[in-house]
Amino acid sequence: MVTEEKGTLSIHTENIFPIIKKFLYSDHEIFLRELVSNAVDATQKLNRLAALGEYKGKIGDTKIKVSIDEKAKTITISDKGIGLTTDEIKKYINQIAFSGAAEFVEKYKDKGEEKQIIGHFGLGFYSSYMVAKKVEIFTKSYQTGAEAARWECDGSTDFEITPTKKKDRGTDIVLHIAEDSEEFLQKHRLQGILDKYCKFLPIEIEFDGKVVNNPSPIWTKQPSELKDEDYLNFYKELYPFAEDPLFWIHLNVDYPFNLTGVLYFPKLKNELDVQRNKIQLYSRQVFITDEVKDVVPEFLMLLHGVIDSPDIPLNVSRSYLQSDGNVKKINTYITKKVADKLGDLFKKDRAGYEKKWNDIGLFVKYGMISEEKFYEKALDYTLVQDIDDKFYTLKEYEEHVKPNQADKDGNTVFLYTTKQAQQHSYIENARKREYGVLKMDGQLDSHFINHMEMKMEKVNWKRVDADVLDKLIDKDEKKESVLSEAEQTTVKELFDKAINNKAFTVNVEAMSTDDMPVVITLPEFMRRMKDMSAMGGGMAMMGNMPDAYSVAVNGNHALVGKILKAKTEEEKTDLAKQAFDLAKLSQNLLTGPELTAFIKRSLDIVSA
Amino acid sequence: MVTEEKGTLSIHTENIFPIIKKFLYSDHEIFLRELVSNAVDATQKLNRLAALGEYKGKIGDTKIKVSIDEKAKTITISDKGIGLTTDEIKKYINQIAFSGAAEFVEKYKDKGEEKQIIGHFGLGFYSSYMVAKKVEIFTKSYQTGAEAARWECDGSTDFEITPTKKKDRGTDIVLHIAEDSEEFLQKHRLQGILDKYCKFLPIEIEFDGKVVNNPSPIWTKQPSELKDEDYLNFYKELYPFAEDPLFWIHLNVDYPFNLTGVLYFPKLKNELDVQRNKIQLYSRQVFITDEVKDVVPEFLMLLHGVIDSPDIPLNVSRSYLQSDGNVKKINTYITKKVADKLGDLFKKDRAGYEKKWNDIGLFVKYGMISEEKFYEKALDYTLVQDIDDKFYTLKEYEEHVKPNQADKDGNTVFLYTTKQAQQHSYIENARKREYGVLKMDGQLDSHFINHMEMKMEKVNWKRVDADVLDKLIDKDEKKESVLSEAEQTTVKELFDKAINNKAFTVNVEAMSTDDMPVVITLPEFMRRMKDMSAMGGGMAMMGNMPDAYSVAVNGNHALVGKILKAKTEEEKTDLAKQAFDLAKLSQNLLTGPELTAFIKRSLDIVSA
Repeated sequence: MVTEEKGTLSIHTENIFPIIKKFLYSDHEIFLRELVSNAVDATQKLNRLAALGEYKGKIGDTKIKVSIDEKAKTITISDKGIGLTTDEIKKYINQIAFSGAAEFVEKYKDKGEEKQIIGHFGLGFYSSYMVAKKVEIFTKSYQTGAEAARWECDGSTDFEITPTKKKDRGTDIVLHIAEDSEEFLQKHRLQGILDKYCKFLPIEIEFDGKVVNNPSPIWTKQPSELKDEDYLNFYKELYPFAEDPLFWIHLNVDYPFNLTGVLYFPKLKNELDVQRNKIQLYSRQVFITDEVKDVVPEFLMLLHGVIDSPDIPLNVSRSYLQSDGNVKKINTYITKKVADKLGDLFKKDRAGYEKKWNDIGLFVKYGMISEEKFYEKALDYTLVQDIDDKFYTLKEYEEHVKPNQADKDGNTVFLYTTKQAQQHSYIENARKREYGVLKMDGQLDSHFINHMEMKMEKVNWKRVDADVLDKLIDKDEKKESVLSEAEQTTVKELFDKAINNKAFTVNVEAMSTDDMPVVITLPEFMRRMKDMSAMGGGMAMMGNMPDAYSVAVNGNHALVGKILKAKTEEEKTDLAKQAFDLAKLSQNLLTGPELTAFIKRSLDIVSA
Repeated sequence: MVTEEKGTLSIHTENIFPIIKKFLYSDHEIFLRELVSNAVDATQKLNRLAALGEYKGKIGDTKIKVSIDEKAKTITISDKGIGLTTDEIKKYINQIAFSGAAEFVEKYKDKGEEKQIIGHFGLGFYSSYMVAKKVEIFTKSYQTGAEAARWECDGSTDFEITPTKKKDRGTDIVLHIAEDSEEFLQKHRLQGILDKYCKFLPIEIEFDGKVVNNPSPIWTKQPSELKDEDYLNFYKELYPFAEDPLFWIHLNVDYPFNLTGVLYFPKLKNELDVQRNKIQLYSRQVFITDEVKDVVPEFLMLLHGVIDSPDIPLNVSRSYLQSDGNVKKINTYITKKVADKLGDLFKKDRAGYEKKWNDIGLFVKYGMISEEKFYEKALDYTLVQDIDDKFYTLKEYEEHVKPNQADKDGNTVFLYTTKQAQQHSYIENARKREYGVLKMDGQLDSHFINHMEMKMEKVNWKRVDADVLDKLIDKDEKKESVLSEAEQTTVKELFDKAINNKAFTVNVEAMSTDDMPVVITLPEFMRRMKDMSAMGGGMAMMGNMPDAYSVAVNGNHALVGKILKAKTEEEKTDLAKQAFDLAKLSQNLLTGPELTAFIKRSLDIVSA
């Protein structure tokens, strides 16, 4: 018979202890962060008690000292904080995961400063067994008449407490490093871990004769106390090898969540640098991670700087983080702060803003594509640059080109180039009609163009080589052809034969006599689809489509007349081929054997 | 007085339980893997007991069933395994982290099948509280006369056991899903998790009316039982959208570590596909991760397939993994297996191997650069391909070209092209001397060339445009110049003036009359340094060096004679410019306004 029973779950220490030791943290080096954080915690508690008048002794030098004894194979972390009485050792150390910090916070929370407490005694301390085979604690409480005690445990569940001699108040933790962890006895290894996790802890930390941290980083101060120089110096401290940033945003919010920090807009000079210098996430000045995905909006992931928030849940899964209310609010707050800062810069100093545009344009365009709320604000200060290097907002540009660049249906056509040098002859062409041409050669520009075309009514975008000049902006003005219809057919057949390639569709058009005799164009829609697929966009199948070019033969050009009048079939074909090769050259299509043959032919002409 | 004291560490359940629930796994979806693994475990134990004659009842259908009740907001996992008696509930469930599996293995280990046991009762089960606010267990043991029991716990540390009615042997786990985890009540979400973690578990699992796993994946079978078709079908099962792989390697080792698996060499068609379809790491048929860094040698990270090993430590830090002895051995074993397989393919079917070279070359070259042991084996079957698409091993090629391509110092010169179309005229040039030219246009080829130059004595590599033809392979044969020294000086001055650009250094050389009048070359060493830095190699400063081209003016070419004889200064400059522009064209240096001007000039010539 199963009898009804109520009870309490139990955990056997000997079963769970190996799991805590090995699996609680994924990175063994974390032990140092935990122990130094505990030391900082103990020191801050002392300061707090002194401030409240509950400790009346001298505080003195409270530097935390980290040292290595290579011979003894030990690492020691010493603080001059509150120390532990024997009773406190039994309570906070011998009972694993007994949260001392929680109790301290509970006791002093009315005094409103609970946020200054970093650590949690107990569990963090036991991370020392990830690297140590034996740990000793030498400790003496701040309390009047307290005696020093020594605690020792070899990583089994058995501990020992003995009396010891210790002059000063505070705690020394001595780690006897295990054989598989001797890497941590190397000075540079330990220095690296301190740099990573402890660089901005609020109490001075000494290692190898030097103070290794900056206890008052700028994000803990008020913007009103700080000068530009302070921000630039702090940037250098974070990323010693990076160029100066363009500008920065000081984050400072108390409600409904707590967050401080400084975000920098870097110069996007070197892609590697940008990826290396990530935003760092802190919790009360303790470094947590530089994986800030979900906390920072994706389009701002390439920013640099520091975010410090005790309200971001740590150590939990990404799916959990995504649905966390605070994280969502933080994300929205950062987006808004960045959008407002950019708007300020634009309004206050447009010339300066334009100079920075090449660096910030990528962020702004990415933000416009990916976040509707950002789009709404950024539309007013998103710039385009024409080939004369003049900047316009999108609305300014529309006004600017509308009179000359409206087509027969009333759409304003924005002409652009993706490669100024390669599309030079087409740009020159457009200039003949005094059309403006925008430089759209950024990484995101093809996505940006697609996005803006959906957003801006009555504005179409066309690359300068998308059509022959008369049709690029179709104003329904027709030129008369000097060729009869029969002659046009003859010319078409002649060029079809000379080109002999299905990728090229020949049309005979009536163009200006000073236009090229042959122009090769790439219809806008098809080209865009192929560009997107080449960048790994959605339409992979488009990448496999054959190239399709339009070949416009200018029936009104002198050379076409010359071809028609040429005596032999061979002469006609040679002239047509030369004209077609020159058109290919201007579209960067003449390569390999064709180019070699063209060069040889041209050489023969000049050498003769 | 501190008194000496020994004792045992203790853990308070109420302190540690929240940590186990929230932090033990970084991903909440893991709960399903843990619960289904436990169900598989319970079923395998029953089969084991039946095989040993300790269970004499019917086994029947042992499908594990996973189901969702959207209204009740529950997920249920049901098995027909050994079930639990009330005593076992108290032992294995109420004592968190009491390892039931360990005890079972201990008991049956003499029977040599302990490796079939997957899970660990206790801790894995408690991961259910990552998503559930309350959990019920309905269970009935396989033991004769056992009675069904119901256990319930609401995520506090209080549990309750009551009698219940349950007909069948086995265990049903009912999770009452918490509000913040309701995503797991969606069918497609659960299906996705089962696909990811449970696809190859050894007991059939039913979800939504269908069996969702393949209990006998091919890596658990002997290679002798399997046909090519089986390997290809399994590949499709792993990566439904991928093209067929080129070949595969069946891994199977018992000692000194246990590892099975199948590695596939994919067609490197689409970079995205290759990165998406990662190698999957399993432990006794339970999916663990597709982050196999450190387990698989880096140069084989782009392979596809499955590795199953209970001997790879999981959930621990990367630095720990790197120093783990088993992981190092596994890494070496995989390298050796791959090297041997490639050697076999090459020996048994060279024609087939050559056809696959374009896909496997990247792996082989990366392996040669990064792993010395692999290099030693692979040297015999690393291929180079010439522009006639003929393949040679490196040694074969050295023998092949030595007679015609040894320079005056006795070094054999390997000529290569990085872009066949762009370097066409230089290739044609080399062909005139019957020099061979290798295609080295792969991603890694510039690193590979540097590496092989260090390895192969007396072999130098030079790109076809590294020098003028006579000096590309310097055989110390000098041509006579038709120009006097004074004329050479005149020609040099004339071209310097016409070019007027410090990036181009002009030299007048005595070349063949049928060589080009002007040849632009890129000295090998400088070009390589710039290429490496452009790819993000070590020498970033090289990227900022100005381009430096050598311009060889062929004093023996008819055009140079014509230039000297031209009447006006303008005519001389025009001819020199045209010759220089044609040389720039063949080196792909003529772009932008220069190209447009060149095209216009050439058009005027033919139109006249």
